[in-house]
Amino acid sequence: MASKPDETRTGMVARIIRDRIEARTLTPGARLPSIRAMAESIGVARSTVVEAYERLAGDGMIRSRPGSGFYVAAPLAPLALDRLGTAQEREVDPLWMLRQSLGERRHALMPGCGWLPDDWLAGDALRKAMRGAARADGDGTLAGYASPRGSRPLRTLLARRMADQGIEAGPDQILLTDSGTHALDLVCRFLLQPGDTVLVDDPCYFNFLALLRAHRAKVIGVPMTPTGPDVAAFAEAAATHRPRFYLTNSGVHNPTGASLAAPIAHRLLKIAEAHDMVIIEDDIFADFEHAPSPRLAASDGLDRTIRIGSFSKSLSAAVRCGHIAARPDWIEGLADLRIATSMAGSPLAASLLHNVLTDGSYRRHVEGVRTRLARATAKVAMRLRTVGIEPWIEPAAGIFLWARLPDGTDAVDLARRAIVEGIVLAPGPVFSTSGGWRDHMRFNVAMSDDERLYAFLEAALSRPLDGATG
Amino acid sequence: MASKPDETRTGMVARIIRDRIEARTLTPGARLPSIRAMAESIGVARSTVVEAYERLAGDGMIRSRPGSGFYVAAPLAPLALDRLGTAQEREVDPLWMLRQSLGERRHALMPGCGWLPDDWLAGDALRKAMRGAARADGDGTLAGYASPRGSRPLRTLLARRMADQGIEAGPDQILLTDSGTHALDLVCRFLLQPGDTVLVDDPCYFNFLALLRAHRAKVIGVPMTPTGPDVAAFAEAAATHRPRFYLTNSGVHNPTGASLAAPIAHRLLKIAEAHDMVIIEDDIFADFEHAPSPRLAASDGLDRTIRIGSFSKSLSAAVRCGHIAARPDWIEGLADLRIATSMAGSPLAASLLHNVLTDGSYRRHVEGVRTRLARATAKVAMRLRTVGIEPWIEPAAGIFLWARLPDGTDAVDLARRAIVEGIVLAPGPVFSTSGGWRDHMRFNVAMSDDERLYAFLEAALSRPLDGATG
Repeated sequence: MASKPDETRTGMVARIIRDRIEARTLTPGARLPSIRAMAESIGVARSTVVEAYERLAGDGMIRSRPGSGFYVAAPLAPLALDRLGTAQEREVDPLWMLRQSLGERRHALMPGCGWLPDDWLAGDALRKAMRGAARADGDGTLAGYASPRGSRPLRTLLARRMADQGIEAGPDQILLTDSGTHALDLVCRFLLQPGDTVLVDDPCYFNFLALLRAHRAKVIGVPMTPTGPDVAAFAEAAATHRPRFYLTNSGVHNPTGASLAAPIAHRLLKIAEAHDMVIIEDDIFADFEHAPSPRLAASDGLDRTIRIGSFSKSLSAAVRCGHIAARPDWIEGLADLRIATSMAGSPLAASLLHNVLTDGSYRRHVEGVRTRLARATAKVAMRLRTVGIEPWIEPAAGIFLWARLPDGTDAVDLARRAIVEGIVLAPGPVFSTSGGWRDHMRFNVAMSDDERLYAFLEAALSRPLDGATG
Repeated sequence: MASKPDETRTGMVARIIRDRIEARTLTPGARLPSIRAMAESIGVARSTVVEAYERLAGDGMIRSRPGSGFYVAAPLAPLALDRLGTAQEREVDPLWMLRQSLGERRHALMPGCGWLPDDWLAGDALRKAMRGAARADGDGTLAGYASPRGSRPLRTLLARRMADQGIEAGPDQILLTDSGTHALDLVCRFLLQPGDTVLVDDPCYFNFLALLRAHRAKVIGVPMTPTGPDVAAFAEAAATHRPRFYLTNSGVHNPTGASLAAPIAHRLLKIAEAHDMVIIEDDIFADFEHAPSPRLAASDGLDRTIRIGSFSKSLSAAVRCGHIAARPDWIEGLADLRIATSMAGSPLAASLLHNVLTDGSYRRHVEGVRTRLARATAKVAMRLRTVGIEPWIEPAAGIFLWARLPDGTDAVDLARRAIVEGIVLAPGPVFSTSGGWRDHMRFNVAMSDDERLYAFLEAALSRPLDGATG
């Protein structure tokens, strides 16, 4: 087999394999020829093949399975990278964060987690609703499929709740989904082509980044300020990149806890209109607000804005039910996509949710949670300051404090050291398209009221970090 | 504005708009300039603009909203087409079938539906499980998120059930999903790039076609025989198209009710191996079998086969829970994708399912359903013959009869006539990549025991069809 000029033997072997993978003669999951067979067929030393395979493995193109040889890596490279690493080896990226939080392994403390502890949620209200559903007879809630858009009683109720927030949407403008994330995934499928550009806040909720990566979108971050994204940077990004949509949490921003100011909302909408950009408002923390802050969906009247909601954060993550509110013709298209890709939602989840929302127990529950969160926010802010960690703002609502570490502290290093001690932290760069915010950390106030956290932080911040993984 | 040579004025206006859409100056959802504004800006008559807009609307590029003007159509054209039509106007395609079945509107009779009536499902067993779950305390089933792969007790149980079918898979080789369709969607996301080719049976379950369309896959059909796909055609398609995977139901084939014969299974696997093709076995009807028939996943040992299961058809479609069994490294990648695109499944659904599967009620339930189905199959086969409709085979198990209409009858026309009378039928071409099987129809035996159906069929088949929509 001829080598190209200036190509090493190792490089040649690697190129041959790479060409075969690109030509799909070797497809993802396929076993590569054995070291011996490859060496013989090309006429090179076995050690050369070993080196070439290792180089390709380093590039993520192939993977070794001990005792079984080398395999072509699965195609979704960005998500698939590092997935064979252990918790400590794996890169600290959005999926690392999610896997730690979702309890792939048990951790002692999870101040980096994005939701409330189980005992803050509405288990009792749900248990009551379950008993009701178990008694109800013959309404199909426990047998058949949901209709394409999902339970009409629940959609009618959601429409009424949105009207209270100033968002006008009839029940036919609402599609029930399995979760807020599922809602966003459907919207991405509906609007995005691979290679399209999307604007997000920098920092933003890290799973936005993983999800958009799965859609092969190009993601541009706009620097966040305490009253919304930086308008000048937003306008420039809109003009330069012609993004398909802007994805944000206006009311209770994740991770910063910021709220959009009305004049900023107005200017963002004008820019979106000028560039014919869709806006996706992920509003899953809405019910934690004491007083409603401005919403793009309300000002815009769901013309170019799509609103996503869910009760996973405020009621229960075990009853999977999110929703999308949008223009009726978009909802039709989204419903088709929903049927094609996951048939129908759970009528049981919709029925439980409807019960809890109508019998008064949800209202009482969230009122209690809001009070508790306000207290926890004040307490954790104070306690963080005692170890030299300074909140970026005092959020008006929500479960997060976005806070700056003492000078010279690297948030990712700190998170790596914490995980070894069973503490899941959420370091700034995980939330950032630019990999910035290296000295920031997101704290879940409901999971940070534990002296073990502060003992760890105090010890870790007092000795110099060496950049190692701990 | 200059026109190109040989271009009509209408053609020119249409081209200008098309160029703007392609350049994304006009993006999906954007309102087009008004007829008057457009006519003035280009210097043509208003009637020319009207004609151009109508031509573009006919191509599906733009859509009119009465009283509100014209809008650029949403991008997912294949699924979005015709979505504004009424039930009768809309093309009789997979999504039409699904929307009719999922009760977009109420129909009197649904012999074309793909699942059992509510009262054949296990509502009572689930009600009992719900009461148990409502009593259980503090296990997180009603509050928190599921782990990335989902409930370990349920996965352990599923692994044991698969072992009984000869499929060796540890709990770590199983990923819980929200449904069988959701499982297939994840697998498609994991394996497919836009433009990849997939083999299916012809006929096959129609939502395979809608789902694969959403993934922009090229779909090739292999003619089905009563013992599996035609092996020679399969080998030729594998060699010619180099498909990424072959998607099938081996055990109880939808729509035909065929079962794969062991020698065919062996030859399919050899061909798949030779062309490094993955096999996806959608086995959601498995529990309807009286005696297990050969499975590709069993012979292959989940090396290149991915098995999909669910209890939506046999237990309840209201408790959404499917699963994927595959190689451990694929399950890892699938779990990452699952987290990124829908976070986690429902711990409540997993817990209810686990209860029903372990307390004996599911076993008793499916035994009853199998007996009832065997009787219904015999009865409906006989009744269909009395109106000149002949079953293709006598299926060993399942809920479907695939049957040939009397000579000269067009199944799509018959389905259009039926829907006007409130009867949902499932015509052959909806199941076919080739648009073939025009004289076949799928009957759900549990929904075909109603004299109104035979009265309609007798009347419709006795008078000539004129090809109109009824």
